[in-house]
Amino acid sequence: MQPHLPEPQALVALVDALRALPGVGVRTARRMAYHLLQHDPDAAHNLSNALELALNNLQHCEKCNGFTQEVICPTCVSPNRDTSLLCVVETAADQNIIESTHNYKGLYFVLMGRIAPLEGMGANEIQLARLLERACDGLVREVILATNFTAEGDTTAHYLSEVLRAKGLSVTRIARGVPAGSEIEYVDAGTVAWALMERKPA
Amino acid sequence: MQPHLPEPQALVALVDALRALPGVGVRTARRMAYHLLQHDPDAAHNLSNALELALNNLQHCEKCNGFTQEVICPTCVSPNRDTSLLCVVETAADQNIIESTHNYKGLYFVLMGRIAPLEGMGANEIQLARLLERACDGLVREVILATNFTAEGDTTAHYLSEVLRAKGLSVTRIARGVPAGSEIEYVDAGTVAWALMERKPA
Ligand SMILES: [Zn+2]
Ligand SMILES: [Zn+2]
Repeated sequence: MQPHLPEPQALVALVDALRALPGVGVRTARRMAYHLLQHDPDAAHNLSNALELALNNLQHCEKCNGFTQEVICPTCVSPNRDTSLLCVVETAADQNIIESTHNYKGLYFVLMGRIAPLEGMGANEIQLARLLERACDGLVREVILATNFTAEGDTTAHYLSEVLRAKGLSVTRIARGVPAGSEIEYVDAGTVAWALMERKPA
Repeated sequence: MQPHLPEPQALVALVDALRALPGVGVRTARRMAYHLLQHDPDAAHNLSNALELALNNLQHCEKCNGFTQEVICPTCVSPNRDTSLLCVVETAADQNIIESTHNYKGLYFVLMGRIAPLEGMGANEIQLARLLERACDGLVREVILATNFTAEGDTTAHYLSEVLRAKGLSVTRIARGVPAGSEIEYVDAGTVAWALMERKPA
């Protein structure tokens, strides 16, 4: 729905700016703008400031490439992590989910993307050189590839495994299968097919 | 999902600020933050500026209560509108949709809300005094109530019709019925019931 009113320019500009958020169309953007202006101007100020603060204060960790306010992030400098394990993820969100399992004590490398030739994402865009340097620090023994099980995530994992193995590193991929707690009847057939193919001794 | 990483404070603050947007939970907010920081810092700057600009430049039109950068909005000052008709809507978004029909040439009053006692929204919150003053300018002959067909929207319309009628104004309500272009089979029963009750001579 295009606007039909002679809307004030500042409102049009705000709606346009909100549309840059992922998953936000013009209708949602307009609802957000009206909400902020009418009911929550404090939140609007707060969001404006938080955006500037984040842009000015966040950088990529020199070791893991994740977002941090320091040169090296708290996770990478922690003495409690296993320096022989390096888990490669596509995004900081994926890293977060793995951390939430409380089951992994190694370190991370955040690609901040994945190889997707159609989108112009190649080895350079995913900072391959930095990953190789990181993985070859002499401490890392195993690189765990935790990219998504999508076409691009699989391509990325395949490519990285070749390159990292050539460096003499042990490379593994997280398991693909039926989600824990789910009933097979309700899982998509592709997933079940993978779970069958990648079956393990019981 | 709560964050489990020692996330940088500026990132936590940005995620929190984004959650103030309607319909945005912590997971979506984090996805938005990562997207802006990683892929679109220009959009983040732009959004920050647009928020401040909107907060600083938009005000409520003295006549219709809609958002405007002037004291009186372009719609209210237009010489091409029928000053005898005043359409009351809940939000600027509703006004927009009515404008998009190109079928209404009267003026508007935007409540910027509706009566909802449970949410502490009463007659004062919907600027009743301003609406009455506006409707009693001597030019308005008919007030068209275009609040939503929800419990709150109906309550608001009922209340406004009493008050406005007491001022000697003609008050109408937009029609409720089966949406144009829809097949009755697929319309919810409540709507069909209303369409039957509010049937008109064919
Ligand atoms: Zn790090
Ligand atoms: Zn106006």
